[in-house]
Amino acid sequence: MTAPFRFAPTTPAGHAAQRRQSQLTKPPGSLGQLEDLAVWLADRLGEATPARLVPAIAVFAADHGVAVEDVSAFPMEVTGQMVANFVAGGAAISVLAAEHQATLRVIDVGVAHPVPVPPGAGAALVVRPIRAGSRNLLCEAAMRADECQVAWQAGAEVARQLVAQGHTLLIGGEMGIANTTAAAALLCALGDIAPEHAVGRGTGIDDARHAHKTDVVRRALARAQAAGTDTPHAWLAQLGGLEIAALAGFYEEAGRQRVPVLLDGFISTVAALVAVRHQPATAHWLLAAHASAEAGHRHALAVLGLSPLLDLGLRLGEASGAAIALPLLQAALALHRSMATFAEAGVANQ
Amino acid sequence: MTAPFRFAPTTPAGHAAQRRQSQLTKPPGSLGQLEDLAVWLADRLGEATPARLVPAIAVFAADHGVAVEDVSAFPMEVTGQMVANFVAGGAAISVLAAEHQATLRVIDVGVAHPVPVPPGAGAALVVRPIRAGSRNLLCEAAMRADECQVAWQAGAEVARQLVAQGHTLLIGGEMGIANTTAAAALLCALGDIAPEHAVGRGTGIDDARHAHKTDVVRRALARAQAAGTDTPHAWLAQLGGLEIAALAGFYEEAGRQRVPVLLDGFISTVAALVAVRHQPATAHWLLAAHASAEAGHRHALAVLGLSPLLDLGLRLGEASGAAIALPLLQAALALHRSMATFAEAGVANQ
Repeated sequence: MTAPFRFAPTTPAGHAAQRRQSQLTKPPGSLGQLEDLAVWLADRLGEATPARLVPAIAVFAADHGVAVEDVSAFPMEVTGQMVANFVAGGAAISVLAAEHQATLRVIDVGVAHPVPVPPGAGAALVVRPIRAGSRNLLCEAAMRADECQVAWQAGAEVARQLVAQGHTLLIGGEMGIANTTAAAALLCALGDIAPEHAVGRGTGIDDARHAHKTDVVRRALARAQAAGTDTPHAWLAQLGGLEIAALAGFYEEAGRQRVPVLLDGFISTVAALVAVRHQPATAHWLLAAHASAEAGHRHALAVLGLSPLLDLGLRLGEASGAAIALPLLQAALALHRSMATFAEAGVANQ
Repeated sequence: MTAPFRFAPTTPAGHAAQRRQSQLTKPPGSLGQLEDLAVWLADRLGEATPARLVPAIAVFAADHGVAVEDVSAFPMEVTGQMVANFVAGGAAISVLAAEHQATLRVIDVGVAHPVPVPPGAGAALVVRPIRAGSRNLLCEAAMRADECQVAWQAGAEVARQLVAQGHTLLIGGEMGIANTTAAAALLCALGDIAPEHAVGRGTGIDDARHAHKTDVVRRALARAQAAGTDTPHAWLAQLGGLEIAALAGFYEEAGRQRVPVLLDGFISTVAALVAVRHQPATAHWLLAAHASAEAGHRHALAVLGLSPLLDLGLRLGEASGAAIALPLLQAALALHRSMATFAEAGVANQ
């Protein structure tokens, strides 16, 4: 159970939007969270009546050395196969991006077994592998500090480009077999959550593998702690992954560019937590699309103080949950822009 | 708190859809309620992979004699003013219908103070007033049996026309100052709910008026009971309203035409309850869009055994909550139709 999304404006544009909401032809508050959404977007975009959002989705993909620990229901090869599927238009996020008119970029920052894709097919693929998957975080740091930094900067660069191209809402997503293990470990380290609350079923593991996965996270945390890990970047290098580092950089840069972010599920939200721990001002730009069925997500949202809009039992990642919530934001803004006021419509007010 | 929407198929098309869901490139069940939605729609539409829905929204408007009892925050004149606003494009439902490509029809079945609208403006207005608002249900039957029947048939005729025009999903909505009072009384009578649970804040009344409204409902129920009211139609005539009767007829006819219905909020759901009590097979065709902030709605949904998709604190009516949920259905079907299977995409399965 999470609290409903509520928002009190902080800027002149936000206050103007709130005044407009009170003048539209509806009982005050009767559009519920859609009113708060419109005011939040106005506040963040700095416009009393924002135009339709121009959304972009960036899906970062990489493999994880910890996959050899048998923590996932799918083999590592699936990461590269799914990247090809994203680009060919057959994945959930490909369908949703087309359905909701969002730009889709897929960024390989470390896929171990890439699958050749036809040139120019579907969404734009950016191939910037930093290494063929992160190292096994159970045994050693997942990334060297410089590798982690390069991944972070790759994500930041994607955000900068998408904003320069005129996108006004950024959505990050991820693909990486075993990345719920890395995200769970990071949530424990940065959110002070116990492994039994942070570790979930991922793509669908059974009880025995879930207990094993929890144990892997517990031992990885102990290892990283013993190594004297301290800063958010150091924890990220120890326990994260290349796509998680890229996502964190993507979110931080979105905030720096003053562009709102619609968060997806567990891994995306943990990456946002890394970004917020590194640069607290990032939190100002984050909106939670949904509460995932993946166990740790509600904890990650709570640590960030975010209230999700949807609760539909989604647990796919790829940015799919955020893409599914996108029409709520567009509808909130359409209502905000296009409804008549009581005065305009000649309707008696209370 | 309501249970998540879950569905097990009952027809060959539904079973085929469920098989397809298990072959699409995602961990099984990872699209949560969107998988159930796709299977439900396939099951009801009788097609394993249904085409994009062609939705129509019919908003029925009428006034209520019980408005003189001071149960609403708005004056009766607002019903006619809002009908003009619907048609001119300035109301929430006008904006949402345009945003989500739904046909909008507005049907005046008993507005007491109609406002002239420019011919051909915006949505099509159908003027079929049965009388200038229902009678005061606190003192007498809201409608004569024949008036109630004419309203019911007016709603059924709208459903027939919309289906004949090729619409594959029907949404009903309503406008009528004081109609939460009528709906609350009907919910008590047909759902065996106590007035204190059925009566809510409507457009936004204070504690004193809420206590008064609850008392009005209690006394109206006692009056109708004393009059020997028995059948659903008899209760509807005693405690309902012209737009509620039209909505019930609309829903019953949708089921008869084998077309799915996406329910809106409190009044719409109570009208559906009337239709189901009159014709139980209607229930088969109903899907709940959202849980309204209006107190009685969760009880009405529970009586019908329906699980809402959204919970956004909406309480506007006009079909707005159903219109806001429409993209979830379209997205569920787009994913179902357009995602690649594991075999097609060359992705390794579990």
